[in-house]
Amino acid sequence: MNQSMQKYLDKAEVLIEALPYIQRFNRKIIVVKYGGSAMIDEELKEHVIQDVTLLKLVGFKPIIVHGGGKEISKWVGKVGMEPEFVNGLRVTDEATMELAEMVLGKVNKSLVQLVESLGVRAIGISGKDGGLLKVEKKLADGEDIGFVGDVKEVNADILYDLLEKDFLPIVCPVGLDDEFNTYNINADDAACAIARAVKAEKLAFLTDIEGVYKDPKDPDTLISELRVSAGKQLMEEGYIGGGMLPKLQNCIDAIENGVSRVHILDGRIPHCLLLEIFTNKGIGTAILNDTEEKYYHGE
Amino acid sequence: MNQSMQKYLDKAEVLIEALPYIQRFNRKIIVVKYGGSAMIDEELKEHVIQDVTLLKLVGFKPIIVHGGGKEISKWVGKVGMEPEFVNGLRVTDEATMELAEMVLGKVNKSLVQLVESLGVRAIGISGKDGGLLKVEKKLADGEDIGFVGDVKEVNADILYDLLEKDFLPIVCPVGLDDEFNTYNINADDAACAIARAVKAEKLAFLTDIEGVYKDPKDPDTLISELRVSAGKQLMEEGYIGGGMLPKLQNCIDAIENGVSRVHILDGRIPHCLLLEIFTNKGIGTAILNDTEEKYYHGE
Amino acid sequence: MNQSMQKYLDKAEVLIEALPYIQRFNRKIIVVKYGGSAMIDEELKEHVIQDVTLLKLVGFKPIIVHGGGKEISKWVGKVGMEPEFVNGLRVTDEATMELAEMVLGKVNKSLVQLVESLGVRAIGISGKDGGLLKVEKKLADGEDIGFVGDVKEVNADILYDLLEKDFLPIVCPVGLDDEFNTYNINADDAACAIARAVKAEKLAFLTDIEGVYKDPKDPDTLISELRVSAGKQLMEEGYIGGGMLPKLQNCIDAIENGVSRVHILDGRIPHCLLLEIFTNKGIGTAILNDTEEKYYHGE
Amino acid sequence: MNQSMQKYLDKAEVLIEALPYIQRFNRKIIVVKYGGSAMIDEELKEHVIQDVTLLKLVGFKPIIVHGGGKEISKWVGKVGMEPEFVNGLRVTDEATMELAEMVLGKVNKSLVQLVESLGVRAIGISGKDGGLLKVEKKLADGEDIGFVGDVKEVNADILYDLLEKDFLPIVCPVGLDDEFNTYNINADDAACAIARAVKAEKLAFLTDIEGVYKDPKDPDTLISELRVSAGKQLMEEGYIGGGMLPKLQNCIDAIENGVSRVHILDGRIPHCLLLEIFTNKGIGTAILNDTEEKYYHGE
Amino acid sequence: MNQSMQKYLDKAEVLIEALPYIQRFNRKIIVVKYGGSAMIDEELKEHVIQDVTLLKLVGFKPIIVHGGGKEISKWVGKVGMEPEFVNGLRVTDEATMELAEMVLGKVNKSLVQLVESLGVRAIGISGKDGGLLKVEKKLADGEDIGFVGDVKEVNADILYDLLEKDFLPIVCPVGLDDEFNTYNINADDAACAIARAVKAEKLAFLTDIEGVYKDPKDPDTLISELRVSAGKQLMEEGYIGGGMLPKLQNCIDAIENGVSRVHILDGRIPHCLLLEIFTNKGIGTAILNDTEEKYYHGE
Amino acid sequence: MNQSMQKYLDKAEVLIEALPYIQRFNRKIIVVKYGGSAMIDEELKEHVIQDVTLLKLVGFKPIIVHGGGKEISKWVGKVGMEPEFVNGLRVTDEATMELAEMVLGKVNKSLVQLVESLGVRAIGISGKDGGLLKVEKKLADGEDIGFVGDVKEVNADILYDLLEKDFLPIVCPVGLDDEFNTYNINADDAACAIARAVKAEKLAFLTDIEGVYKDPKDPDTLISELRVSAGKQLMEEGYIGGGMLPKLQNCIDAIENGVSRVHILDGRIPHCLLLEIFTNKGIGTAILNDTEEKYYHGE
Repeated sequence: MNQSMQKYLDKAEVLIEALPYIQRFNRKIIVVKYGGSAMIDEELKEHVIQDVTLLKLVGFKPIIVHGGGKEISKWVGKVGMEPEFVNGLRVTDEATMELAEMVLGKVNKSLVQLVESLGVRAIGISGKDGGLLKVEKKLADGEDIGFVGDVKEVNADILYDLLEKDFLPIVCPVGLDDEFNTYNINADDAACAIARAVKAEKLAFLTDIEGVYKDPKDPDTLISELRVSAGKQLMEEGYIGGGMLPKLQNCIDAIENGVSRVHILDGRIPHCLLLEIFTNKGIGTAILNDTEEKYYHGE
Repeated sequence: MNQSMQKYLDKAEVLIEALPYIQRFNRKIIVVKYGGSAMIDEELKEHVIQDVTLLKLVGFKPIIVHGGGKEISKWVGKVGMEPEFVNGLRVTDEATMELAEMVLGKVNKSLVQLVESLGVRAIGISGKDGGLLKVEKKLADGEDIGFVGDVKEVNADILYDLLEKDFLPIVCPVGLDDEFNTYNINADDAACAIARAVKAEKLAFLTDIEGVYKDPKDPDTLISELRVSAGKQLMEEGYIGGGMLPKLQNCIDAIENGVSRVHILDGRIPHCLLLEIFTNKGIGTAILNDTEEKYYHGE
Repeated sequence: MNQSMQKYLDKAEVLIEALPYIQRFNRKIIVVKYGGSAMIDEELKEHVIQDVTLLKLVGFKPIIVHGGGKEISKWVGKVGMEPEFVNGLRVTDEATMELAEMVLGKVNKSLVQLVESLGVRAIGISGKDGGLLKVEKKLADGEDIGFVGDVKEVNADILYDLLEKDFLPIVCPVGLDDEFNTYNINADDAACAIARAVKAEKLAFLTDIEGVYKDPKDPDTLISELRVSAGKQLMEEGYIGGGMLPKLQNCIDAIENGVSRVHILDGRIPHCLLLEIFTNKGIGTAILNDTEEKYYHGE
Repeated sequence: MNQSMQKYLDKAEVLIEALPYIQRFNRKIIVVKYGGSAMIDEELKEHVIQDVTLLKLVGFKPIIVHGGGKEISKWVGKVGMEPEFVNGLRVTDEATMELAEMVLGKVNKSLVQLVESLGVRAIGISGKDGGLLKVEKKLADGEDIGFVGDVKEVNADILYDLLEKDFLPIVCPVGLDDEFNTYNINADDAACAIARAVKAEKLAFLTDIEGVYKDPKDPDTLISELRVSAGKQLMEEGYIGGGMLPKLQNCIDAIENGVSRVHILDGRIPHCLLLEIFTNKGIGTAILNDTEEKYYHGE
Repeated sequence: MNQSMQKYLDKAEVLIEALPYIQRFNRKIIVVKYGGSAMIDEELKEHVIQDVTLLKLVGFKPIIVHGGGKEISKWVGKVGMEPEFVNGLRVTDEATMELAEMVLGKVNKSLVQLVESLGVRAIGISGKDGGLLKVEKKLADGEDIGFVGDVKEVNADILYDLLEKDFLPIVCPVGLDDEFNTYNINADDAACAIARAVKAEKLAFLTDIEGVYKDPKDPDTLISELRVSAGKQLMEEGYIGGGMLPKLQNCIDAIENGVSRVHILDGRIPHCLLLEIFTNKGIGTAILNDTEEKYYHGE
Repeated sequence: MNQSMQKYLDKAEVLIEALPYIQRFNRKIIVVKYGGSAMIDEELKEHVIQDVTLLKLVGFKPIIVHGGGKEISKWVGKVGMEPEFVNGLRVTDEATMELAEMVLGKVNKSLVQLVESLGVRAIGISGKDGGLLKVEKKLADGEDIGFVGDVKEVNADILYDLLEKDFLPIVCPVGLDDEFNTYNINADDAACAIARAVKAEKLAFLTDIEGVYKDPKDPDTLISELRVSAGKQLMEEGYIGGGMLPKLQNCIDAIENGVSRVHILDGRIPHCLLLEIFTNKGIGTAILNDTEEKYYHGE
């Protein structure tokens, strides 16, 4: 057999290797929190969209929840707004909220555009559409920091209806309170609340870190698989700090509310989503229940 | 019978008067082009949203198509952009398009918010979602004026799917060309193309004029009902000018492509939509086919 | 704004006022017991049918249950039958039952005819059709008074099937016992049993009285809203007498078996049904659960 | 094998003999015009209802259309009405129509009762329900004879909807004209119009004659199978007379409008319907198309 | 009435007699274990297939489970295989299993062929198809006798799906273990497991005995109706012996797991299935729950 | 980036490369004629089953049609049957047909077993099930060679129903004639007839040759893409000989009857099916319409 043919057979092997995973997650909902570098670098962006589109095509039901952080800051500068602070925390006043919603909307439609260009039916919505996300004001240490909200209720039917009509929903984290005021929601929180509400099989966070470390200063302490009880202990013992603490808390909440498995992936690795799901290469940290069967890929 | 009771009976009569209209348009699609003053004046805005919501609740299937003209200009100023012109026509360059899409998105979600606050399921989309509006570049007298597009194709299934799931779709007139570039579309054109594609029963334009006049200078020449052939003659004979010409052309195209009736309504009259549909008060100008049965309300 | 326009705007306001009620009762079942003067006076009859038809068209699911009392007496005379009595109670022998069924059938089809003439799909059935009403013989103080029955079982599927096919069911209160003999049923009882079986949102009695009075001789003691516990107390304390006692008992039974609200309306007021449901004018007496939220219209 | 067992085996053979017929007419619509002696004799009545119920249970979709002739005359006498005549034809004035509708309604519900007692879901309707039968005034030799109508339009959806919900529809021949006045319809005509509208597989008339004779005076000229062209010729040549002429015309119309086969059965033979359909005993006259395949039972 | 007509009326009576049974078992699942003489004698075979086909046509949902015993032995001889024994029990080695599967497959398709020739949609499957029957190795007194399995799990959805698509499923008792090896299953056991899994209304065994006897030597002790508790007592007291013991145990298991009634029929009586179900002739022994209502046919 | 990571990224690229093909054939029917070496070599067999299973999992609707040639010959010998010949052609007498059906049934279930072991729902049927394949006797040069048939009619509904229930149908080429006799069918012919009947998107033949050659002796003349008109010309000009002639004729027939593309693949190349469909490596010969758009992979 010549070399060229060998190359093709190698390809076939890759496809065959994906078979059990495709089967396992068939018609399952996978919520992807999309953010960080993977949203800024154009090439990484294309990879993420290809990955999610492929998931859709082979029978999964992905839902994207995205943020828009750096773009919002860029536009705040562009229109010359002066940020206000309370106790050192930035306040989201009405004008900032208006601009944030505009920027998030723009990001949302640009993702729709990319998915559509790959031939898959996308629909970009915010938490306002169909009353998807009901919020209540979030206080920061008891202080009012403006239109920043916690998700109080998710109207999962909206997503079920769109999935049934074969849309790939792309959600930006804006919601309404009971008086129908507009609030910004942390995208991690929104992804987590949505994954819980739709009883997602998987929730994957695309982040700018390798995963959870026992000792963040020692790269050798990266944890591949973290059981919920072990995760709680790490938090109690103070090993987890900075931005990882609320993220890990979110992951554990999701697991405890019906999501089967949460992944913290390094979005800077091309196709990290695909590799995580379709190959036996573990990327980042998987969080799962204490009692769940041993995960099957060869870590 | 005392006076208070009489007042209530009068109310009952109004509801009963609406009965044949409710029945006639049951489960019919009504496309509403929403723009002009009715979009700026807060009270008129509330009336329009109440009207459309009521249409939805009594069994119609309304679709809103909106513009965002004045808001866009406001924001162009806000971010200090300098408009460019070609042959006296403003050019929509990439930066302008980006901003326009943001503003239209903001307007779109604010309408969703209003409808949701009245307890009806709304979904705000643009022509990008699900590939709803496919466009091609529009030339102005042969000159390229940037990202301004004509609707080439409407993917009506998107709207049928959303209507089937009981959403009230609110569409902003942005679309993609074959290379997946973003284009702005004239809202009148978009409404018209959508009404044709979904074979709407009615297409209603909320405008800032009373209707079509034979002689725009003489208010007594307002035309209540205009047959297609008469409309064409008026255009040929030069009676119709200014912004009304393309609008009337759009109306006639819609009628000739399966829309049963087009209304040019004066959006400055509160609840003009409701009055037009549910009472025997004719508002503005109705355009209809030469052969269509005599319209039933008492003009 | 001129006077004519003001009149139209007033109309629009009435329609808008109905909006929250239309929304609240969307797709809910409303059982209307139709009887008394509203069934004799031709104009009132027309009003009732208009009201029910409108309810149907705006998305409710009304079911009419009707009696035929005065017509039956008229025909008993016409064919020269001699009524028989036991302990002062009129006996429904086989011949009377046969005639009663014929008269009720005639009334039934005349209502179908009226609803159809307003363009709504009606179907007139009795408790025999599909085995809708199973009855057992009713004894009056232990005495057999012939073919008068109590409802033993309601086959709710019949009504669900007809509602699903978009019919407005009109039911006459005749049923079969286990040996398939024909029985007459009190229309109030039939309406009540049906409302319970289909878990109606509302049950409305069109009667010839203003409502429930604390002191029937004092018109100022009309009770607008009667909680179940208060109603029971009134009955125990002997305030309620005559024909109202079984009616009120029926109302309370309905509430205690899943119907949300029962209305005793004065059928002599034109469009009383519409006014009760769509405006903030309370007509007659509403009976509701002790724990139910405060009713929202402005009494 | 003993005699008792032989008896049982004979039974099994009868059931097996029915097998190809059950299969052939599975899910097919069979319209039965029910009238004549079979409607008066209690035992025959029971047989007919058993037959139709069995047809329903083994997978056919029967629809009964019935008259009420003799009962109507009986009641006209009972209430002491004086028949009026025009050109020797009895006039159906408003009072007569009212009474006729009452009697037909009574007959209708008595049939429902019988079918229900055999455990099958029946629903008794008239041509008013759901606007099933639209009529226009019938003139007798140009003379107005009152509320007697010809079927102008059948709303077949009503019957399809009821069949889909597994009802056995029992129809009495009363309908409405465009002004919603009540009309009596000849039951044969109604059955025929309905069979055509629902594209029935079979239309069977239960009559008081053996079938069509070439020479009505000679019992040996009974025609078992009559092709349409032969039927027309018989009529042209004057062989067919009396009440048979319009009946045969009706049969031929039905065949020419999509009904596969029409049977004129002798309703005085017990279970004639069952025998005709399930055994190789031909009863009465079968009318069929010139081109239809040879009928399969062993005539 | 002449003799020929009388014969036809007798036929009609047989059909009418079947009416309540057809109604009672409408849309119910009936599992038929087909084996013994009724599978060898060509005429009996034809009768069984006619019976099952008729059951299907009149609205039941039959499932056939068949063995192939004698044919397997015939083919074992034909290919010159030497049976092996362990402790006096025949061992099913791989070669025997391969041949057995081939023979069972042949029998399976021959039954499909017969049903199809009567115009009913049949599908022949084994326990491998859709993973219908999951088995585990059966030991005979602790000894491994090869590829003989017990049913561990039935995938009832496969049968529901085929019934929904209007197939008559014909199942041969071969299944797979967890390592996807092929096993033979006792056909009685397979029928029983399937009847339990699909919650069959009836399970009928076609056997070569008259039924259960209290004293097998005394034909007068045949038991027509055996309650579960009485059956258990008979077994405990040693009255039941030979091949009947496991069969009766199976029957009792089925009843205790949701099957309403089990019949041990004498397959040597022509149309025994039809007679048992459609007439008041009791064939063989019916096993039923202690608490079940008295069986309705006239034993 | 280290080498191990690069390996994973290469894998991701392969999956991404498959994306447009997965999308293009989503929910399309692909008929695979399975035979030759790929059915004998255990490793190749496993590859084919993996390939087809993967096609199923990523959203295609594969149907396998298989032969069993060599196994049949093996068993004919095993049971000591003597083949009969007419004009040099082997005759399929009743005994041979019986054995052939048994062997094909065994092969059929072994394929079901393999697919099931990969977690996909398979169902093994023959042309008898549901009357899938109706045949008529095939004559060889006018001579009767026994139970060898040509497909006369395909009951495509059977396959649609099974596909709708998410089965992967595996069909063995045995059918019934009008008298319900069993016939063997050439597997290529059966695959072709089925592909036409279900309007398959693709029909792939797994063969033991590289494809169609202009000059079979010159390996350089392998034709990658053959238009129908060119194919016909090759046949007319005598370039195509031996077993390829009827195969090519079959391919052309399929194309001319609605199949979009037919592939003659070399079944000896591992995963040839997957490579053909998911990569830009052309395997064997593709036959397609003269007018079809240029095939998109990079030949």
